[in-house]
Amino acid sequence: MTLLNASRGMSLATALVLASGVAQAQAPLASWNDGASKQAIVDFVARVSQEGGPDYVHPSERIAVFDNDGTLWSEQPVYVQLAFAMDRVKAMAPEHPEWKDTQPFKAVLENDVAALAASGEKGLMELLAATHAGMSTEEFSAVANQWIRSARHPKTGELYTGMTFQPMLELLQYLRENRFKTFIVSGGGIDFMRPWAYEVYGIPPEQVVGSQIKVSYEVKDGVPTLMREPGIHLNDDKAVKPVGIHYHIGHRPIAAFGNSDGDYQMLEWTTSGPGPRLGMIVHHDDGEREVAYDRGSHIGGLAKGLDDAGAKGWHLISVKDDWSCVFRYACAPGR
Amino acid sequence: MTLLNASRGMSLATALVLASGVAQAQAPLASWNDGASKQAIVDFVARVSQEGGPDYVHPSERIAVFDNDGTLWSEQPVYVQLAFAMDRVKAMAPEHPEWKDTQPFKAVLENDVAALAASGEKGLMELLAATHAGMSTEEFSAVANQWIRSARHPKTGELYTGMTFQPMLELLQYLRENRFKTFIVSGGGIDFMRPWAYEVYGIPPEQVVGSQIKVSYEVKDGVPTLMREPGIHLNDDKAVKPVGIHYHIGHRPIAAFGNSDGDYQMLEWTTSGPGPRLGMIVHHDDGEREVAYDRGSHIGGLAKGLDDAGAKGWHLISVKDDWSCVFRYACAPGR
Repeated sequence: MTLLNASRGMSLATALVLASGVAQAQAPLASWNDGASKQAIVDFVARVSQEGGPDYVHPSERIAVFDNDGTLWSEQPVYVQLAFAMDRVKAMAPEHPEWKDTQPFKAVLENDVAALAASGEKGLMELLAATHAGMSTEEFSAVANQWIRSARHPKTGELYTGMTFQPMLELLQYLRENRFKTFIVSGGGIDFMRPWAYEVYGIPPEQVVGSQIKVSYEVKDGVPTLMREPGIHLNDDKAVKPVGIHYHIGHRPIAAFGNSDGDYQMLEWTTSGPGPRLGMIVHHDDGEREVAYDRGSHIGGLAKGLDDAGAKGWHLISVKDDWSCVFRYACAPGR
Repeated sequence: MTLLNASRGMSLATALVLASGVAQAQAPLASWNDGASKQAIVDFVARVSQEGGPDYVHPSERIAVFDNDGTLWSEQPVYVQLAFAMDRVKAMAPEHPEWKDTQPFKAVLENDVAALAASGEKGLMELLAATHAGMSTEEFSAVANQWIRSARHPKTGELYTGMTFQPMLELLQYLRENRFKTFIVSGGGIDFMRPWAYEVYGIPPEQVVGSQIKVSYEVKDGVPTLMREPGIHLNDDKAVKPVGIHYHIGHRPIAAFGNSDGDYQMLEWTTSGPGPRLGMIVHHDDGEREVAYDRGSHIGGLAKGLDDAGAKGWHLISVKDDWSCVFRYACAPGR
């Protein structure tokens, strides 16, 4: 892109923001350093927003999808939802004396991370069934919501809702101001994210796609109830992400943002459609302000995406170089 | 409700419509006769929209769900999607000579409705698998879209998109002008409805909930593809409708509109929540302008809903008395 295009793109985008009547406390994308990543975003938005332009996309088709863990908030040192499940086990342990001698619960109660990891996916499923099922959707929502508003990150001591990435919050806002509809498409549990996503991300429950536990409808003692059952309805990760997108959204997004190889197919599906497309990967390369990890990490592992990004035309967002500030709690205190 | 309340409600709703800046070609709900049904709608909308009022509902929670067949468009003499499947069988028959001697295909090719009905749910599933699976989601979307824009209703000779109920289109519009988000929640196939729902109902694909065929993601000859598989992911009818609402929307609607006992649980789930709720059933009692049917009809049967409407506080919409005009093609020619 030439400088001329870039400046035209910028002013068009700015004009649209002003025209939308949304009050701007600060410039859009304020926590993004000038550079290729920020420019790619601004340019893409300008192209699809320019009425009469060759790349114009009607607002009803301006669908942007975001992975959650590692893309919108911290996933280190442990997926937040796993921390939640572990806390639930501890809270529920008095009613389950047998857990003291049964894996994977024993591992959780003894904070034995190695034994927990050794229990594998089967152990994880048992943990989820014990802590995420057997109650109504409304009860679960209340428990998850209460936890996420009070639990604190083990390293920073901050609330998890403050461990969201400020530049990504600004990106969500910027896209919406330019008439994009923003969705979460996560491998995490949909009912864990929904209760607070609107407040923190500005994303309402109906725009959250995620893994889903089975739910059944029954009238219990005269009260209509949706019960959470110990079974998986959708495991929304890897090759299932485009499927989850189809089930929920029903058209192909034009922009996708992820951070791990679990997002590979979502990026691939999004960016292989006709017309303008934007695929971006948050590359966690900042060992000082966050954690540096990619290949070989068993949380948020990124290898194939890193290898193929160039050929696929996906942009790598460098946490170190592209973000002037990382966490919401530090960038925007009081928000 | 007193007359005073009614008139205050009406003027508040009108003020909101004007404030929303949407150009009104005619008064809202123009095809609704004055009466209890129209009044119930206007009153409900006024109550939930009145900021500071006891029944105020934030716009993010103003979720309204609509059944499709028999609620938004005609389902007589046959579900439109079944007509589509039958036409597909006829179009595909040259490639399937064996269908001449195999049920339920034989029945379709010979227009033998009795034999088709005798094949039951198993036959219907075979019909759907043969005509709705084995192609990509984009191929299916194109085929369904092309059909629905050209096929004509057997009795009126009108396009199916003209066989939508004009008063319900006005209701969708009225709710949206009052900052409701409108969803379809149908037992019909989601991918059959999505391609045209935005244009005809103003409902985008991501706000359509319906029955879903299994879909898988694969890269075929280098092209990322979503393939439709012969299996059911969600059978979104009866007690599964509240479940589909949970999976897709993630919060409980405050208003629900249906017409058959297949909508019973959706109405029950919606109207049993706290705060103001609106449940309405389109009662097909007009044998002159449409078809009069309820109890015992095997299309859109309505018995339990009719029996319980009073106790549940659900309003019956009388096609005969409440609608001054029925079908879009006749009420709003040229639209």
